[in-house]
Amino acid sequence: QSSKKKIGQCVQAINSTLILTSKQNKKGSHTQILIKKAEIDAAVQLLLKLKVDYKQMTGQDYKAGCPPSENLIVSNNGPAADDCDGEDLVDPWNVSASSTKGVDYDKLIVRFGSSKIDKELLERIEKVSGQRAHHFLRRGIFFSHRDMHQILDAYEKHKSFYLYTGRGPSSEAMHVGHLIPFIFTKWLQDVFDIPLVIQMTDDEKYLWKDLTLEECHRFTVENAKDIIACGFDVNKTFIFSDLDYMGASPQFYRNVVKVQKHVTFNQVKGIFGFTDSDCIGKISFPAIQAAPSFSSSFPQIFGGKKDVPCLIPCAIDQDPYFRMTRDVAPRIGLLKPALLHSTFFPALQGAQTKMSASDPNSSIFLTDTPKQIKNKVNKHAFSGGKDTVEEHRKYGGNTEVDVSFLYLTFFLEDDEKLEKIKEDYTSGALLTGELKKILIETLQPMIAQHQERRKQVTDEMVQQFMTPRPLNFKF
Amino acid sequence: QSSKKKIGQCVQAINSTLILTSKQNKKGSHTQILIKKAEIDAAVQLLLKLKVDYKQMTGQDYKAGCPPSENLIVSNNGPAADDCDGEDLVDPWNVSASSTKGVDYDKLIVRFGSSKIDKELLERIEKVSGQRAHHFLRRGIFFSHRDMHQILDAYEKHKSFYLYTGRGPSSEAMHVGHLIPFIFTKWLQDVFDIPLVIQMTDDEKYLWKDLTLEECHRFTVENAKDIIACGFDVNKTFIFSDLDYMGASPQFYRNVVKVQKHVTFNQVKGIFGFTDSDCIGKISFPAIQAAPSFSSSFPQIFGGKKDVPCLIPCAIDQDPYFRMTRDVAPRIGLLKPALLHSTFFPALQGAQTKMSASDPNSSIFLTDTPKQIKNKVNKHAFSGGKDTVEEHRKYGGNTEVDVSFLYLTFFLEDDEKLEKIKEDYTSGALLTGELKKILIETLQPMIAQHQERRKQVTDEMVQQFMTPRPLNFKF
Repeated sequence: QSSKKKIGQCVQAINSTLILTSKQNKKGSHTQILIKKAEIDAAVQLLLKLKVDYKQMTGQDYKAGCPPSENLIVSNNGPAADDCDGEDLVDPWNVSASSTKGVDYDKLIVRFGSSKIDKELLERIEKVSGQRAHHFLRRGIFFSHRDMHQILDAYEKHKSFYLYTGRGPSSEAMHVGHLIPFIFTKWLQDVFDIPLVIQMTDDEKYLWKDLTLEECHRFTVENAKDIIACGFDVNKTFIFSDLDYMGASPQFYRNVVKVQKHVTFNQVKGIFGFTDSDCIGKISFPAIQAAPSFSSSFPQIFGGKKDVPCLIPCAIDQDPYFRMTRDVAPRIGLLKPALLHSTFFPALQGAQTKMSASDPNSSIFLTDTPKQIKNKVNKHAFSGGKDTVEEHRKYGGNTEVDVSFLYLTFFLEDDEKLEKIKEDYTSGALLTGELKKILIETLQPMIAQHQERRKQVTDEMVQQFMTPRPLNFKF
Repeated sequence: QSSKKKIGQCVQAINSTLILTSKQNKKGSHTQILIKKAEIDAAVQLLLKLKVDYKQMTGQDYKAGCPPSENLIVSNNGPAADDCDGEDLVDPWNVSASSTKGVDYDKLIVRFGSSKIDKELLERIEKVSGQRAHHFLRRGIFFSHRDMHQILDAYEKHKSFYLYTGRGPSSEAMHVGHLIPFIFTKWLQDVFDIPLVIQMTDDEKYLWKDLTLEECHRFTVENAKDIIACGFDVNKTFIFSDLDYMGASPQFYRNVVKVQKHVTFNQVKGIFGFTDSDCIGKISFPAIQAAPSFSSSFPQIFGGKKDVPCLIPCAIDQDPYFRMTRDVAPRIGLLKPALLHSTFFPALQGAQTKMSASDPNSSIFLTDTPKQIKNKVNKHAFSGGKDTVEEHRKYGGNTEVDVSFLYLTFFLEDDEKLEKIKEDYTSGALLTGELKKILIETLQPMIAQHQERRKQVTDEMVQQFMTPRPLNFKF
């Protein structure tokens, strides 16, 4: 029996345990399950990585009785994307689904060890905030969380918290999908009346992309304008460039170093799939995305308080960073951040991938004209309708894969209208062209208004938002 | 023939090539030789690391036909110190010599690919500076360099340069050995009249030692007082804590990120012996020690100029950091720093190891009383004398291993006196007790004067030295 098989079987066994554990313990302690899952997950990652390591070191697959040949190679380009056959690939740099319906988010919750945002949590959010839940919550666009109940427990006891979200400024152009976390964060801020910090990871983009520091910093400023145009209050919001704030806050750097001391290369290898050929900047970067999760990173806002809880609204692909952060936090005497995870915003071509800022036809950009919006939706939006009008009238369309309908779930706030569209499209009463028209007429004014608001954002306003300073809150 | 043997033979072959190359090319282009040596050195390191990796991954030595057994282990505590049999081990964290005479510095020059400070260079330094060479230079305590001729070439053309040295503040207590780079740097600054930056790597100590951030930062301030007591001019010298300056200078962080983008984990593994179990802070730290080599890291001193050459006086164990820096520099459009390397200051117990700040009897501390100095030298200083007075008178002592004599080469400035002592000790005319007495009488006033000067150093003065500000130079 070969050792390679043994490793394979071991991985299999652990995977089964993982699923069993999650099923059996549905009623057990929530925290305990999370810990078990995390442990098992780590073990699986480790075994997978061992095989990758072996291959990387020897250039050959791991086989018993066959020592590596003389042609030793030492580098590769990261673990193969098809390591987990048939599974969706979701990490901060890659999202690809195995089904046309897109990523299986229920599976992802099990794999990541997070919790589903269920009816009970929705009702609690409405009760505590005194507001109807945002349609992103009602429609399952924000679908998963970590420790949201603890945030609400504390808030009910008049203990405030703060919001942290971010953006990787890889180009000047932002598309509508990039707005999702900001639209939702704005709602959370309005509803709970709490401080918000927004991290622009220009250092990350410099490390990962073929860009200069100057370009990355310029994209930060340009993207900040689009973020500000979402309507954030300058008295409650701090936007920061890593390249600037790392060099402007000794407390921030101290938290970065604390995290860096408590995470090994083995761990980031397991979590992010880094390899020995990756630059040391990438390897240590996760600590920089972790640091804003701790209120002590912003003494100007929290007066040096270490124990203000943090809630992070983000797309689920960013979760690996915060799984790491939550693992480290108690070991450095700091609070674990809570999270709210969103699904991915689908590309015009279909829900299988995230959109790409480099392909102008993969999404609607915030700079698109009404005409461009119309053309893109009509030409590129993947349709769930039938091939002919006759067939469509007879069998109806499929809203689960129709990108125009999916976009409406994001941007059409009226629940009744959306339900009616769904019924009519499914029955065949509404044709693809008509559905697209509704989307176009929803997007055109929305984008035009955004452009109008963005025009009002001056360099001085950006400067104001990005200056480290106290906000209008007392801690 | 086993693959393990093959790797061994390959290493052997490359080692021979290395020595051959350095002999054959004595008259070739200096730069070319350096590049070749660096390449070969890297290849050797790579092969050695491959073996270590294999062992680390499998827990077994690399052998053909024997696949790793089931008991996989994944971590170890760095490469075994005996990897290179019979060779001195020299890296930033370990120095151990295989001979009682201490490290073989000529071999080290070949291994590190640096250049010997020869008579010609000594004479050039005297000519350009218009001063007699410091006794550290005359006596081979600073024995090796990189690109010192280029620094002098530029200086002769009225192009200034700056000095960069540093200290890892691992405790409050500094010993006399710690003063060596500072005494020499002070001389260089006086002679060339140039700016000096001194890096206190408190972040490094936090990452490597079981210390809190607060402790490391306090040691920085305490050590800075000892450094200031060496007589540095506040108008020409900037001392900085990494923990503070990283969070106070966006330009410094930008240079750190630039270096981090251009160095891979494979490279730091080869250079520093890091393993997969090391924390990501250690792995990325070398970039932080590299950054002060570039004048753009100090815009307040150099007005944003990127091309002010840097000269780094340091002990040879710090060279790996700067080999890495010199490798990266041209790839990020910056100048390679030049270096002057010193030998190690021997422990009282003998020249085989560096002193340890944690063993109070391994050296003379800057806080020692005259009585402590007397007792330590008399009790602990390793003697090169004979066992009995009769034998000593007959055969004489050995100054090459006698620690008291070695200390005098560092601290007794009078060449004639030192020569006389050497003659008398070697002939047997001077006894060990008498030699020790000379050392005690040299150290006691020196340490007392240091303590006196340190007392004058106020917190305000430390604050002044450590405030980012322009110095009295125009660039």
